[in-house]
Amino acid sequence: MSDKRKRYILPEEEIPHYWYNIQADMVNKPMPPLHPKTKQPLKAEDLYPIFAEELCRQELNQTDAWIEIPEEVREMYKYYRSTPLVRAYGLEKALGTPAHIYFKNESVSPIGSHKLNSALAQAYYCKQEGVTNITTETGAGQWGAALSYAAKVFGLEAAVYQVKISYEQKPYRRSIMQTFGAQVTPSPSMSTRAGKDILTAHPNYQGSLGTAISEAIELAQMTPNCKYTLGSVLSHVTLHQTIIGLEAEKQMEMAGEYPDVVIGCFGGGSNFGGISFPFMRHNILEGKKTRFVAAEPASCPKLTRGKFQYDFGDEAGYTPLLPMFTLGHNFAPAHIHAGGLRYHGAGVIVSQLLKDKLMEAVDIQQLESFEAGCLFAQAEGIIPAPESCHAIAAAIREANQCKETGEEKVILFNLSGHGLIDMASYDKYLAGDLVNYSLTDEDIQKNLDEIGNLEK
Amino acid sequence: MSDKRKRYILPEEEIPHYWYNIQADMVNKPMPPLHPKTKQPLKAEDLYPIFAEELCRQELNQTDAWIEIPEEVREMYKYYRSTPLVRAYGLEKALGTPAHIYFKNESVSPIGSHKLNSALAQAYYCKQEGVTNITTETGAGQWGAALSYAAKVFGLEAAVYQVKISYEQKPYRRSIMQTFGAQVTPSPSMSTRAGKDILTAHPNYQGSLGTAISEAIELAQMTPNCKYTLGSVLSHVTLHQTIIGLEAEKQMEMAGEYPDVVIGCFGGGSNFGGISFPFMRHNILEGKKTRFVAAEPASCPKLTRGKFQYDFGDEAGYTPLLPMFTLGHNFAPAHIHAGGLRYHGAGVIVSQLLKDKLMEAVDIQQLESFEAGCLFAQAEGIIPAPESCHAIAAAIREANQCKETGEEKVILFNLSGHGLIDMASYDKYLAGDLVNYSLTDEDIQKNLDEIGNLEK
Repeated sequence: MSDKRKRYILPEEEIPHYWYNIQADMVNKPMPPLHPKTKQPLKAEDLYPIFAEELCRQELNQTDAWIEIPEEVREMYKYYRSTPLVRAYGLEKALGTPAHIYFKNESVSPIGSHKLNSALAQAYYCKQEGVTNITTETGAGQWGAALSYAAKVFGLEAAVYQVKISYEQKPYRRSIMQTFGAQVTPSPSMSTRAGKDILTAHPNYQGSLGTAISEAIELAQMTPNCKYTLGSVLSHVTLHQTIIGLEAEKQMEMAGEYPDVVIGCFGGGSNFGGISFPFMRHNILEGKKTRFVAAEPASCPKLTRGKFQYDFGDEAGYTPLLPMFTLGHNFAPAHIHAGGLRYHGAGVIVSQLLKDKLMEAVDIQQLESFEAGCLFAQAEGIIPAPESCHAIAAAIREANQCKETGEEKVILFNLSGHGLIDMASYDKYLAGDLVNYSLTDEDIQKNLDEIGNLEK
Repeated sequence: MSDKRKRYILPEEEIPHYWYNIQADMVNKPMPPLHPKTKQPLKAEDLYPIFAEELCRQELNQTDAWIEIPEEVREMYKYYRSTPLVRAYGLEKALGTPAHIYFKNESVSPIGSHKLNSALAQAYYCKQEGVTNITTETGAGQWGAALSYAAKVFGLEAAVYQVKISYEQKPYRRSIMQTFGAQVTPSPSMSTRAGKDILTAHPNYQGSLGTAISEAIELAQMTPNCKYTLGSVLSHVTLHQTIIGLEAEKQMEMAGEYPDVVIGCFGGGSNFGGISFPFMRHNILEGKKTRFVAAEPASCPKLTRGKFQYDFGDEAGYTPLLPMFTLGHNFAPAHIHAGGLRYHGAGVIVSQLLKDKLMEAVDIQQLESFEAGCLFAQAEGIIPAPESCHAIAAAIREANQCKETGEEKVILFNLSGHGLIDMASYDKYLAGDLVNYSLTDEDIQKNLDEIGNLEK
């Protein structure tokens, strides 16, 4: 065995004081979100009824590269950050690759994933602005758990709509949210117009993030002193997640290396952007040549097979129109176990970056993702979340390529969360009960044709 | 909020190179284990058929205070250690106590508990001695998961007997062990004589650690090149767990404090001893006055209501006779959700220390333990294992006392693991479906009378 250092943790004073806003450094800025009714470019004020005002300003900020982390949020970060950067010797050995594989271990956050990084920030700003209640949606439950705890930290009440399929597949996440004191409702529900509408049309609909978002927004708008919060997709969420990459940058320096490839799994883009953007900054400003790879599920391939166009962020069309790679806001993804990746669109920043070829995307089938997850578990002792398994699978592909070429590439991926709540999914995988899902080009096109051109 | 540092992590070079063997410093050494057949004091060689030889020597070592951690084990420790020492400001605030509460967060180990500290050591020594297969028992599954992964690290095959009640209450732990590649059997099973005997007498017996130990020992003895491993109780297991307290000692120094009270939950004693003994050393050698409190479940009260006598470590009587506080090796504990604490006896070191009043014990009812766990979860964001909830409850009792007296005591407890696999138990607690269990003095005496004096 090697005697090299395997785990890198930053001293407390090195925990970043600023998030990184890549919009300021992008040559081609993201196109503006459009007001859902007027179709005019959105102003921050247009979003005030839905989100905390500071978050609205962050959302549209294309000028400030560095946004200060409020002291109260940084104070909470210090409870669990820096998360470790780990050299995955076990995985390297199992693969027999000359590549150097590193992962940023966000699974050691108290709630088990990176989601807490933005939940704390969002709850904090809501509290600052006098909000008393917050709503949100959650897929696999990682975001819902984070938000429930963050709400408790800042003394807010939280109501969470959990995608029904996940609510049933992952009952423990519901329990976690309830243990933190949140109210949890499976979505679609009969508690909102959006929920009722879709249940009337499709009584057995198992839910999607898009529908749950509609329900959570509607509840926030109907409740006094209540704001909505979102766990991914939006630019301010990704902004908060850059703490991951900013730490990783310093930690890679401790390891004396710099990544050739940075990989994140991809649902809405916040964990991917979180680990990537601080490194991408050096590509943009200094001409570094690091590759950035988003790993999405083959059953929900908005980046690899979707279309770049204006679309809604939610199923019912309550959100602004966003310029995004999308499969259509009415897209009903297959019931894969990576619930956090079952979303039809990509955030506006990532969409622009992909359009400009500053990053790449790969699609991963369900079975390949779990195979990668089991190999990683046995090699590193950590059961990864089904979402994170996609990043691991993509990293393994890269590492295996290095085995062929003999290249000692440095691969960095984000282990966004652990999968301890997802053991029922592993059970099914080990029993041979999981399947892959295929989409034809016609399926995809038909769905996009249905929504048509929303700008007009 | 305070701007004080909240989390203390040791630089890698500060991770201890030695475990601490308190036996060497004890004035009254533990009485010797007796051979189950001859009733003569045991020699290390007598244990060689069951355990790796180095572990047998460690078990009976009463002279060396410091045992070197093998480089290969320390190398693996570096993957997840030091675990953080955390100042529990959230909990202090929730309680309104002047006490300073710290916890050592073993829940961030890859497998989610402190158990990995000994699993890696035991698997390593087995591998060194040419063993190919290892067996063990597990209650809640924390130890089984740790051992399964440790076996994989050192290329061994693992077979685990899981107490049936836990196997059913916590199916995810079984999945975790299987994901790590272990074979898992619910105990009692028909695969051993011990299992058959008890199932014949009590067809619906839901199992206990004592029975599972018997089965695992029997399998090890029937299988070529196979050794048995144990997750607690024995002195060598506690020895390995002293890494917890040794780190905590240095981390408390970083915090500029020294504990007035050290608390651990108590099943067999290894997590309690692990955090306590390095501090107790200063009581013994330097006359410090720290108190040490073992928190056991009221339904399995060997320390607070058991008898100090020679007894078997397992249900079938395969182990040596150990001088221990015990409820009788035939004791069938109530079906509390803290499966890891459902054990009839206490390790020989702890038993001697309790007899000599160098430590104390308290018993905690199931409902108090979960109440404490939920409060902690909301305050600190970490869902504690039901076992660890007992330590939290005891810490809260101490902190509340400080509130009354106004004392600023420093309280340190071990958060031995997280409870993410135990959410079904939390569900039942939140639904009001959990109960307390009472034992009469007659129940306890009757059970002890049944086993009689085993020395003769």
